[in-house]
Amino acid sequence: MTALPLEKARQIIDAAFAKGADLKLKPLGVSVLDAGGHLVAFQRQDGASFLRPQMSAGKAYGALAIGMGSRKVEAFAKERPHLVAGISDVSGGRVLPVVGGVLIRDKAGAIIGAVGISGDTSDNDETAAIAGIEAAGFTADPG
Amino acid sequence: MTALPLEKARQIIDAAFAKGADLKLKPLGVSVLDAGGHLVAFQRQDGASFLRPQMSAGKAYGALAIGMGSRKVEAFAKERPHLVAGISDVSGGRVLPVVGGVLIRDKAGAIIGAVGISGDTSDNDETAAIAGIEAAGFTADPG
Amino acid sequence: MTALPLEKARQIIDAAFAKGADLKLKPLGVSVLDAGGHLVAFQRQDGASFLRPQMSAGKAYGALAIGMGSRKVEAFAKERPHLVAGISDVSGGRVLPVVGGVLIRDKAGAIIGAVGISGDTSDNDETAAIAGIEAAGFTADPG
Amino acid sequence: MTALPLEKARQIIDAAFAKGADLKLKPLGVSVLDAGGHLVAFQRQDGASFLRPQMSAGKAYGALAIGMGSRKVEAFAKERPHLVAGISDVSGGRVLPVVGGVLIRDKAGAIIGAVGISGDTSDNDETAAIAGIEAAGFTADPG
Repeated sequence: MTALPLEKARQIIDAAFAKGADLKLKPLGVSVLDAGGHLVAFQRQDGASFLRPQMSAGKAYGALAIGMGSRKVEAFAKERPHLVAGISDVSGGRVLPVVGGVLIRDKAGAIIGAVGISGDTSDNDETAAIAGIEAAGFTADPG
Repeated sequence: MTALPLEKARQIIDAAFAKGADLKLKPLGVSVLDAGGHLVAFQRQDGASFLRPQMSAGKAYGALAIGMGSRKVEAFAKERPHLVAGISDVSGGRVLPVVGGVLIRDKAGAIIGAVGISGDTSDNDETAAIAGIEAAGFTADPG
Repeated sequence: MTALPLEKARQIIDAAFAKGADLKLKPLGVSVLDAGGHLVAFQRQDGASFLRPQMSAGKAYGALAIGMGSRKVEAFAKERPHLVAGISDVSGGRVLPVVGGVLIRDKAGAIIGAVGISGDTSDNDETAAIAGIEAAGFTADPG
Repeated sequence: MTALPLEKARQIIDAAFAKGADLKLKPLGVSVLDAGGHLVAFQRQDGASFLRPQMSAGKAYGALAIGMGSRKVEAFAKERPHLVAGISDVSGGRVLPVVGGVLIRDKAGAIIGAVGISGDTSDNDETAAIAGIEAAGFTADPG
């Protein structure tokens, strides 16, 4: 079952794209996953390369898999590369351990999903993800 | 590069959901793939089960993989099951050989993508896919 | 995040084993999955063969993947084998389309997880799963 | 066939959780594998993220795969990363080469299984695993 309403996922994507336009970012792919790591919505802007679905989802999936934003996942990957490579292995290769996967928390602080963005620099991808989550009324946790 | 504009993919999904509402279908997952078999947009309605992303994309992917709507893919699966099982294998397990994956053709008849829908009966899934494609001004080819 | 409390999953497994003892069933493997298809608890009785983890989880996963108890999944596998083979393919090979995967529904009818059992005949596996779910105060939906 | 009795596996998990409560650890996932690397029992505490089943099992599996506790597996991963990456590859991606996978040895020193824990820091995960194994009357070998 979808824990994160589709209407909210659509708002997140629209606001992330708006932020991308403001900042003149390259074309983005945006994935919104529910708390179980399953896709609720995805959109790829014209000109974004074809692996953006998997790359954006892989950032969000890695964050959910360990319950920390992907800024922490990337830090782990630098400090203990074998740890993060192993997490990706046991997930069936679904993790992209890079900044740009941001947890969505509700008012009570519970994780209800994650947003992953890929297309511009990782820092800019993260900025757009945070903007999307906040526009939908949730708390963004980049790690 | 995306051959099918995101704006068109969004129109297709909105129109498919509108058709689903008209016909009182169960919650749907809708994938729109470009001609290279890569995801342009996906949305999963509240209450649709978690494998709908892969199932809807698998119908569209199978159609694009052989250049025929998934009604033909399902017919092949019945007549020569080893053929379709093999196609799925060599694709890395990305094919769901079932009605509901509809090719998107432009005015000239060229394949520019495919829509896959999963959630209700296969015939109803296909009906919603055709409605979406036609609402966006393209020709639907269900196979 | 775990949607189904561990305490309930433990009750389900204990009650399923009690039912197995009553009916003098063969050693069982019992998987309890949350609504996202992720394992909450598993136990394998002494003498149960080594693939019971995957087999029991595969029954429960297939049920959750399409939102119907695995009695329906097995019926689909008989009527449209290519459909169920395709669902398994797009899931990454995680589906065992056989009786014995039972949805767990709460008072409101929402799916909060599934129990899969493997070890005896499929019908007996299902009987033990239903007993476990009901002992924990939930509604069993075998499909 | 199960070499490690389920009753012992349950004792191990209960004692590991008790240790976790004593030390105020984060929610844990605990896997107990037999000598053949197959799951005997798993439990995931409420709030533990969804990949804990695979992560905890991956620590125990890696330990059993080379016959040394995962503290050694992690040391190898640092010294010769290609070695451990290759071991994970040939296992089908089942290895998490990180502290927290502890071999279970009987009185004679024979390996009868392994415990893997994931949820808190790797050192704390290992402490809980050792506590569980010793509470069940076995010798813990963290590597």
